[in-house]
Amino acid sequence: MEARITLLPGDGIGPEIVAEAKRVLDTIAEKYSHQFETPSCPMGGNAIDEFGDPLPPQTLETCKASQAILLGAVGGPKWDDPSAKTRPEAGLLQIRKELGLFANLRPIKPYSELLDASPLKREIIEGTDILFFRELTGGIYFGESGRMEHPDGEKAFSVMTYTTSEIARIVRLAAESARNRGGKLTSVDKANVLEVSRLWRQVAADVVKNEFPDIEYEVVLVDAMAMHLISRPSDFDVVVTGNMFGDILTDEGSMLPGSLGLLPSASLGESGPGLYEPIHGSAPDIAGQGIANPLATILATAMLLRHSLQLETEAKAVESAVDRVLAAGHRTADIAAGGNPISTSEMGSFVLQELLA
Amino acid sequence: MEARITLLPGDGIGPEIVAEAKRVLDTIAEKYSHQFETPSCPMGGNAIDEFGDPLPPQTLETCKASQAILLGAVGGPKWDDPSAKTRPEAGLLQIRKELGLFANLRPIKPYSELLDASPLKREIIEGTDILFFRELTGGIYFGESGRMEHPDGEKAFSVMTYTTSEIARIVRLAAESARNRGGKLTSVDKANVLEVSRLWRQVAADVVKNEFPDIEYEVVLVDAMAMHLISRPSDFDVVVTGNMFGDILTDEGSMLPGSLGLLPSASLGESGPGLYEPIHGSAPDIAGQGIANPLATILATAMLLRHSLQLETEAKAVESAVDRVLAAGHRTADIAAGGNPISTSEMGSFVLQELLA
Ligand SMILES: [Mg+2]
Ligand SMILES: [Mg+2]
Repeated sequence: MEARITLLPGDGIGPEIVAEAKRVLDTIAEKYSHQFETPSCPMGGNAIDEFGDPLPPQTLETCKASQAILLGAVGGPKWDDPSAKTRPEAGLLQIRKELGLFANLRPIKPYSELLDASPLKREIIEGTDILFFRELTGGIYFGESGRMEHPDGEKAFSVMTYTTSEIARIVRLAAESARNRGGKLTSVDKANVLEVSRLWRQVAADVVKNEFPDIEYEVVLVDAMAMHLISRPSDFDVVVTGNMFGDILTDEGSMLPGSLGLLPSASLGESGPGLYEPIHGSAPDIAGQGIANPLATILATAMLLRHSLQLETEAKAVESAVDRVLAAGHRTADIAAGGNPISTSEMGSFVLQELLA
Repeated sequence: MEARITLLPGDGIGPEIVAEAKRVLDTIAEKYSHQFETPSCPMGGNAIDEFGDPLPPQTLETCKASQAILLGAVGGPKWDDPSAKTRPEAGLLQIRKELGLFANLRPIKPYSELLDASPLKREIIEGTDILFFRELTGGIYFGESGRMEHPDGEKAFSVMTYTTSEIARIVRLAAESARNRGGKLTSVDKANVLEVSRLWRQVAADVVKNEFPDIEYEVVLVDAMAMHLISRPSDFDVVVTGNMFGDILTDEGSMLPGSLGLLPSASLGESGPGLYEPIHGSAPDIAGQGIANPLATILATAMLLRHSLQLETEAKAVESAVDRVLAAGHRTADIAAGGNPISTSEMGSFVLQELLA
């Protein structure tokens, strides 16, 4: 296959970790006879420095003309001045909006070799393999909001809204994914109290009943889900929920594996390129030292192969290469737990070795 | 002191566990020379059966004329018919409303003898001692809501609102409590995105700055708090937040000790009686067998002594009696983990023994 994958290395450790992910893409292309064009574009703080704009028009154009986008991380103290005209994160928000990325995918899958780093007991976390679908462009974070005078002082409000089609399109994506994974979908809402959740529950049930009668389906209240994630995380497969509930639950879930440096994320739209990135930040404190962990970005690349290029075999090859590298005991500083750490590029090389083995 | 404490045993195991709490109150009264009047009133399913009303007027009157109310639990399959005119839980909602109970207090404190039951590793959970203050009568659960036609199908909305005084009064209660505990208050919001949270953050900061300059104060975003509760729960003392965030976070927190049967809760208003109860339900499956764990209700009684009667010494005496009973290895079935369980009343008797020791 021929595909253009735009790289947005970004700031801090971004360029170092994206460089390793690019080597993985090159190796996959060679091994499976694909042609990947991988242009690299400025975005974030570096783009502000060079163009005065965190998302220069040329970068956006290149992204739009791609099958997928791989992002490192953006931001850093250099661009944190609150009086600045723009911030690196504004570039990320704009690209999400321009590309209509309404679904945020967050896998929560611990590695058995790293379970000692989990705050949960081994017998609880073992076997956990969740894929969260969080709605990303609606809900209370994008609803009307404001303040007004009130006899008490002030009154402030923020409105949570969802429409039938906003709910249906993300439930559809999540259900499709469930069909390709463990066959189970959990929808999380607060339908016992919130009218907006009652619409969510009704639309989700209709989509599943009419289009995915073959998958196992359940609904769970958001407060109960916050409990289950700790007490029985291995019972879930694909979980779909709204923007704010997803924000809280995916962040809670990100603690379970005990190693943030290994968690990737994807943002997808109705059509057009998806955006793939590690969930960790730009870590300016260790930038340029060659010690950052590239595995989350490499695992984001596996998601890219799966979700934007439909290359399941290649995605699995990358994931199992990472599995084997970890099983062999190779560790960057963030997961070395006192052991002898290897560098960013050494970690990348071990993954390439496994890919070619 | 003279005080009237109204007992609402409720349904299921409620009467059995409240009976043990009453013995504790009687013993405290005798030991510390107080006069506690403890009328018992129908509420919940039993009140529906007898009076066709989950909160008969006479019960409400007795509650209003009390210093504090101790509730067992309400509800059960007998009253679950969705076509029924009223439900046991309606009585609880009405009493909260009638008494203006705007603050829900939930302590999260594991017992070291029971840490094996926690899903968290011992070194993470050990030393945790959090008191949550959840706003209970405002926020999105009580805001305007509805549905409307939309080109897509339907659009639903639910509005989160808070006023200056709603925020100030609960932050004030929480800050007072922090002053009497570890001296630290954490306010949880989503002020980076929600206007209603920005008002929350501003009012909370004003209350602390003007009235509690002596306490340590921090703000944490709700998604970050969902992480911290798992990764470093022992860093927190008093935590105050809105209704929905508190619902999610206190339920998440309730998993940490690994023994729901030991967690009490309190609901307080501006003045008038507070309501105290275990967080567990009426457990109809084991009702009448004399095997329910009375400790959450007994610990709710300690909260009642502390928060409604200002009897800190007596509250501590009850809590430390429970500590010693657990340390001595006494266990009801729910926490016996395969060992030899004792009955509800045996557990109560051990607490009395320790109180009198
Ligand atoms: Mg978040
Ligand atoms: Mg709840």
